[in-house]
Amino acid sequence: MLTGVHVVLAGGDARQLEVIRRLTELDATVTISGFDRLDMPFTGVVKADWSPEILADADALLLPAVGTEDDGTISALFTERELTLTDAHVSVLPKSAKVVAGMAKPYLRNLCEKHGLQLVELFERDDVAIYNSIPTAEGAIMMAIQNTDITIHGSNCMVLGLGRSGMTLARTLQGMGARIKAGVRREDSFARAFEMGFKPFYIADLARQSGNIDLLFNTIPTMIVTAQVIAQLPLRACIIDLASKPGGTDFRFAEKRGIKALLAPGLPGIVAPKTAGRIIANSLTQVILEDRGQRGSAS
Amino acid sequence: MLTGVHVVLAGGDARQLEVIRRLTELDATVTISGFDRLDMPFTGVVKADWSPEILADADALLLPAVGTEDDGTISALFTERELTLTDAHVSVLPKSAKVVAGMAKPYLRNLCEKHGLQLVELFERDDVAIYNSIPTAEGAIMMAIQNTDITIHGSNCMVLGLGRSGMTLARTLQGMGARIKAGVRREDSFARAFEMGFKPFYIADLARQSGNIDLLFNTIPTMIVTAQVIAQLPLRACIIDLASKPGGTDFRFAEKRGIKALLAPGLPGIVAPKTAGRIIANSLTQVILEDRGQRGSAS
Repeated sequence: MLTGVHVVLAGGDARQLEVIRRLTELDATVTISGFDRLDMPFTGVVKADWSPEILADADALLLPAVGTEDDGTISALFTERELTLTDAHVSVLPKSAKVVAGMAKPYLRNLCEKHGLQLVELFERDDVAIYNSIPTAEGAIMMAIQNTDITIHGSNCMVLGLGRSGMTLARTLQGMGARIKAGVRREDSFARAFEMGFKPFYIADLARQSGNIDLLFNTIPTMIVTAQVIAQLPLRACIIDLASKPGGTDFRFAEKRGIKALLAPGLPGIVAPKTAGRIIANSLTQVILEDRGQRGSAS
Repeated sequence: MLTGVHVVLAGGDARQLEVIRRLTELDATVTISGFDRLDMPFTGVVKADWSPEILADADALLLPAVGTEDDGTISALFTERELTLTDAHVSVLPKSAKVVAGMAKPYLRNLCEKHGLQLVELFERDDVAIYNSIPTAEGAIMMAIQNTDITIHGSNCMVLGLGRSGMTLARTLQGMGARIKAGVRREDSFARAFEMGFKPFYIADLARQSGNIDLLFNTIPTMIVTAQVIAQLPLRACIIDLASKPGGTDFRFAEKRGIKALLAPGLPGIVAPKTAGRIIANSLTQVILEDRGQRGSAS
């Protein structure tokens, strides 16, 4: 339980609704700002205008998934007003307070550092990245179904990177009846891919492996699907790049060759905002409880 | 091989392109009508205007998936012209010729009967229905991802009917991490559902089983998801009805209760026209070869 813990939510989207619901279930004191267009009633939740005062006794400030922009703007779907995180806000937070976001840009990182506040980037946590890989994989599958004229079943899929997202995606595609080639860098990933019935290969060999691929999913956030690789792909291939912006694909060359290449947006918040909100809520709860020597459950 | 076999294609959509490709690969003589907007070159394929003469020495006439409308109209995506199947056309066909379509409405059925011609409804064949269940399942999954705010993974899915489509869908959803309740009528289906790790129940018990369902997929083509059932569903539930028109759902009551209910269109031709075309091509080949004491391969 979070009895006596004060959490302030500033801005965000549909995911935050699940966070609010969960926090109130756990008896936290919840203040929300940037939700004036929201008419869903949450009992015991205080709606407040965005001002430093509301942060004075906060134990945690939850920002949206992307934290703030580099000018301090906090994205807020449920209000017309502009929310900005300034020095004035952060300086009011108690020194023990945590600033929590999905990820942080330099502006937010600098501000927290300046005021000696702990910044928690939830999406950096291994467990959160694995939970988030589930809606990401489903979103990628949706994109694949929408953008090809064949079924995933029976298709030749390539997954680059068997990390937290790549593993989930490869396993799910395999469950749908696709044949999976997995591009890895490490020997242990090669062995795991083999054990799971994928066809593993080393990334160094990528261009040579790309001859008969229907769908190429990239999860590696460096330029990896180069012009040299794209030149080997059949024209029917579709590239879905899940690596964070700007992705790992030479999109310019793909377009030139007439190969469909898509940079996936942040899929969890789009395809499954409720599930994505639950993941944030569970993780936020754990982050707060960790300090208190308790453990939350992610169920 | 289909050397010496003359197939006439009248109308159709992107699926027919795969059929044309496959028939020419097998060395059939192919005449296509209703494709004047198509500029893809198929070597050895004759484009002809729609007239009875082109049918005079046909071994098979392939109509689109829906056959003809009840006024004889043949849907044709690749032409501006209207194609109509009349008595004049059918009377020219050799008595040994087969008229092949996905399914047939009474108009087409009567016309074939009158002239003593064999009508083959491909989608009625068990094998074709099973192959088609794959793109249908993927289309249903796409609709589920688009129309819910949760992941399929971890969701409570109900599948009504474990026939050719229901089985594929339930198995695929399970592979993605959903919990499956399967509504069946027969003891053997109950046993199979149990064996596969689904939670089986008898359809008679449907209303009582509907309390905690996120996604309800119906494959049974009679009014089964009645107002009484919908009244038991949680408000967050989404109904996806895959049974042929008009489906098996009381859509009016679902709307009244504010529960999302969608009647899926013919999904294979939409989500995977190439795969769907391949299924038709393979099946058509088999139908032609069966008569000649040979067997085609569906690979």
